[in-house]
Amino acid sequence: MKKYIAELLGTFAMIFCGCGAMTINEVTNGSISHVGVASVWGLIVMAMIYAFGSTSGAHFNPAVSIGFAVAKTFAWKEVPKYAFFQLIGATLAIALLWFLFPESKTLGESIPATGFPNYKAAILEFILTFILMTVIINIAKGSKEVGIMAGIAVGGIILLEAMFAGPVTKASMNPVRTIAPALFTGHLSHVVSYIFAHILGAVSAVILHNSFKTTK
Amino acid sequence: MKKYIAELLGTFAMIFCGCGAMTINEVTNGSISHVGVASVWGLIVMAMIYAFGSTSGAHFNPAVSIGFAVAKTFAWKEVPKYAFFQLIGATLAIALLWFLFPESKTLGESIPATGFPNYKAAILEFILTFILMTVIINIAKGSKEVGIMAGIAVGGIILLEAMFAGPVTKASMNPVRTIAPALFTGHLSHVVSYIFAHILGAVSAVILHNSFKTTK
Amino acid sequence: MKKYIAELLGTFAMIFCGCGAMTINEVTNGSISHVGVASVWGLIVMAMIYAFGSTSGAHFNPAVSIGFAVAKTFAWKEVPKYAFFQLIGATLAIALLWFLFPESKTLGESIPATGFPNYKAAILEFILTFILMTVIINIAKGSKEVGIMAGIAVGGIILLEAMFAGPVTKASMNPVRTIAPALFTGHLSHVVSYIFAHILGAVSAVILHNSFKTTK
Amino acid sequence: MKKYIAELLGTFAMIFCGCGAMTINEVTNGSISHVGVASVWGLIVMAMIYAFGSTSGAHFNPAVSIGFAVAKTFAWKEVPKYAFFQLIGATLAIALLWFLFPESKTLGESIPATGFPNYKAAILEFILTFILMTVIINIAKGSKEVGIMAGIAVGGIILLEAMFAGPVTKASMNPVRTIAPALFTGHLSHVVSYIFAHILGAVSAVILHNSFKTTK
Repeated sequence: MKKYIAELLGTFAMIFCGCGAMTINEVTNGSISHVGVASVWGLIVMAMIYAFGSTSGAHFNPAVSIGFAVAKTFAWKEVPKYAFFQLIGATLAIALLWFLFPESKTLGESIPATGFPNYKAAILEFILTFILMTVIINIAKGSKEVGIMAGIAVGGIILLEAMFAGPVTKASMNPVRTIAPALFTGHLSHVVSYIFAHILGAVSAVILHNSFKTTK
Repeated sequence: MKKYIAELLGTFAMIFCGCGAMTINEVTNGSISHVGVASVWGLIVMAMIYAFGSTSGAHFNPAVSIGFAVAKTFAWKEVPKYAFFQLIGATLAIALLWFLFPESKTLGESIPATGFPNYKAAILEFILTFILMTVIINIAKGSKEVGIMAGIAVGGIILLEAMFAGPVTKASMNPVRTIAPALFTGHLSHVVSYIFAHILGAVSAVILHNSFKTTK
Repeated sequence: MKKYIAELLGTFAMIFCGCGAMTINEVTNGSISHVGVASVWGLIVMAMIYAFGSTSGAHFNPAVSIGFAVAKTFAWKEVPKYAFFQLIGATLAIALLWFLFPESKTLGESIPATGFPNYKAAILEFILTFILMTVIINIAKGSKEVGIMAGIAVGGIILLEAMFAGPVTKASMNPVRTIAPALFTGHLSHVVSYIFAHILGAVSAVILHNSFKTTK
Repeated sequence: MKKYIAELLGTFAMIFCGCGAMTINEVTNGSISHVGVASVWGLIVMAMIYAFGSTSGAHFNPAVSIGFAVAKTFAWKEVPKYAFFQLIGATLAIALLWFLFPESKTLGESIPATGFPNYKAAILEFILTFILMTVIINIAKGSKEVGIMAGIAVGGIILLEAMFAGPVTKASMNPVRTIAPALFTGHLSHVVSYIFAHILGAVSAVILHNSFKTTK
C-alpha cells in the first residue's frame, strides 16, 4: 500500500505544482514566465524523486511504468495499479486547482499550440518521451529512480523538455498529466494521440536500450 | 549554544537574501524579476543547509521544528528555543533591510495578492508547507537536513514553491518569515491564518508519513 | 558498437533539444527566451552525461574526442569513428527539426552576430572550448565524463558559456554542432574558422593541463 | 607552481565569463538579462571549483585566502602569492574583454548603483562576503573547496548574491574582481571601501565560526 500512496502523493504534488504554475501564470497575466513554469516542472519531479524514489520508484507516469514492465524490471500486474493511483493523484491536483482558480480556462492543460498540427505534436511528444525514458532506463536501479543522480538527471530532462517544447505541445510526456486537465476543460481531441505517443516513446526507448545492453 | 547560533545565522541569511531580493526588486522597479527572486529563496536555503545542516539540522522554520517534534525525532523542549533564535535571526535581517532600503514599503512581506481571498491563501499555504514537510521528512536523517541530497531537494522545493505560488501568496511556508516583515510594515491581518496553515501543513505531512512508515 | 550508438543517441538528443530550443524560440517569436535556450543546452548535456557517460564517455563532440586523444587516454583510431557517429546524430537531429519546423530560417545554426567580426568570433570560440576542455580534462576519469560531478560541471559550463557568449557567437564549442545546421541553411562562411578554433581550444587545454600535471 | 597556475586559470575563467556576461549584456542591449548574468557568475565558480578544488583549493579571491589564513588552515606566506596570481588572472581576463569589446564602457565593473550611497554599498558588500565566507568555512576541507557539495554550495551562494545584490552593488565580494575592471575603466572611488568590506567580511565570518567551533 505504501508505494501506491507514494505514487499518488508524488503525482499529486507534481501536477499541483506544475499545472498550478501554468494556471497561476495564466490568471496573473504571465507573472511566472515560461522559464519559471519550466523550472517548476523540473524541480518538483526532482524533489519527488528524492522523497519517494526508494518507496515506489517515483514513476508518477503510466508510460514510465509500462516502460519498466517492458524492461522486465517491473511486474506487469503492478502497471494498472500504479496507473490508477497516478491518475487519482493527478485528478485531485487538478480538482484543487479548479477550486482555487475557477477563472482559469486551461488548468495547465497540455494541448498543441494553435497552428501546430496534431500529427507533428504527436511526433514531438513521442521524441520527448523517448529521450525521457532513455535517461530513466540508463540511470534507474531496477525499476526505481533513486539516488542523487536520478533526481538531477530526470528533473533536468523534464525541465529542459518543458522549456523547449512547451511552446508547441506543452511537453506533456505523461498520459495522466494529459488526461487530468482534459477532464475539466473538455478539450479532448488530442488526448488519444498524445497518450499513444507517450507509451510508444517509452517502449521504444526501452527496446532500443535492451537491444544494445548486452552488446560490447 | 552552537546549534542556536546556527539557526540564528541561517535564518538571518535566508531572510536577508530572500526578503532582500524582494525589497531590492521593489525599489529598483523589478530589475531582479520574479524568476530571480524565486531562485534566491531556493539557493539560500540550499547553501544554509550545507553550511549548518550537521550543526543544527537547518530547520530555520518553527513549523519544521514542530514537525520534527511530532515525528519524535526532535525534543519538544527544544522547539521554543529554536523558534526564538529563528525569530531573532529573521527580525535582525528585516531590520537591516529596513535600514538599507528605507524607501521600501514591503520589505519582502508575505501577504495574499490583491483579490485573492484570505481563506484560499491559507489553503494554498497549507498545501505548500505540506509538500515542503513531506520532502523534508522523507530525506531527513533524524531531525537533521544534512547531506548533498537534502540541500538540493529542500532548496529545490523552496525555489519551485516560491516560483509558482509567489504571485498569489508570496509562498511563505514559514511563521518567522511571515512575522518578521509584518512587524515593520504593520500589515498583520493575514499573519494568524498563515501561521496556522504552516503549522497544520507541517504536522499533517508528518502524521501522514508516520501512518504509512511501517506499512509494507 | 554500443559506445557508438551512445555517441549517436547522445549527440542526437543534445542537438535536437539545444538547436530545437533555438528553432522553436525563433518560430514562436522568442517565447523561450535567451535564458531558457541556454538552460536547455546545459541540462541536455548534463542528462546525456548521466545516461551515457559510463558507456561511451559522453563526448558528443569531435574536439573533445581529439582532446582526449592528445591526452593519451583515448585511442586516436577511435576519433574518426566517434566523430562519424556524432555527425550522424547531429545531422539526424537537424533533419527532424527541419521536417517539424520548415518555416525556421536558422535551425539553431551557430554563426557570429551581425557586426561581430569573424576573427573575434573565432578567438571567443577558442577560449570557450579551452575553458570547456579544461573543466572536462580535470574531472574526467580517463576519457570518460562519468559520475555526479561530471554531469553538473560540464552541463554547467555549457549552460554558462551558451548564456554569456550566445549573443555574439552562439557558443558552439563543437564542430558537429556547427556543421549540422550549416548543411541545411547553407551558411558556411564561418564553419572552417569555428572548427579550427574548437580543435585548437581543446588541444591547448590538454597541453597546458599535461605540462603541469606532474609539477608539484 | 601547479596551484598558482590553477588560481590564475580559475580566476581568469571566472572573471572572463562573469564580467564577460556583463560586458556582452551591455553591448547587446540586455540580451542576456540580469538572471542570465547572475547564473553565469554562479556556474563558472561551481565549474572552477570542480576543476581546481583539489589542486589549489579554488579560492580565486584574496579575501577568501586571508579568511583561511585567519582560520589557520592556510599559510600566511602563501596569501600574497595567491593574491598575485588571482590578480594576474583577473587582469588578463579584463584585458581580453577590452580587446574583444572595445565599445564597452563598464567591462563588468562592480560599482554602487547611482543613488545608492557608498557606505551602504560597503555595508552590503561586508554582509555578502560574510555570508559567502560562512558557507565556505563550513564546507571546506582545510583550506580547500573540494567535493560535490562545495561546488554547489559556493556556486549557489555566488549566484544568489549576484542575483539579489547585483542591482545595487554588483555583488563583487572579491578584491581582484573589483580592482581588475577598475584599472581599465578608471572608476576608482569605490575600490578601497569595497576591498576593506570584503576582507572584513571574510575575517569576521571566520572569527565567528572559530569562536563557536569548540562549543557544544
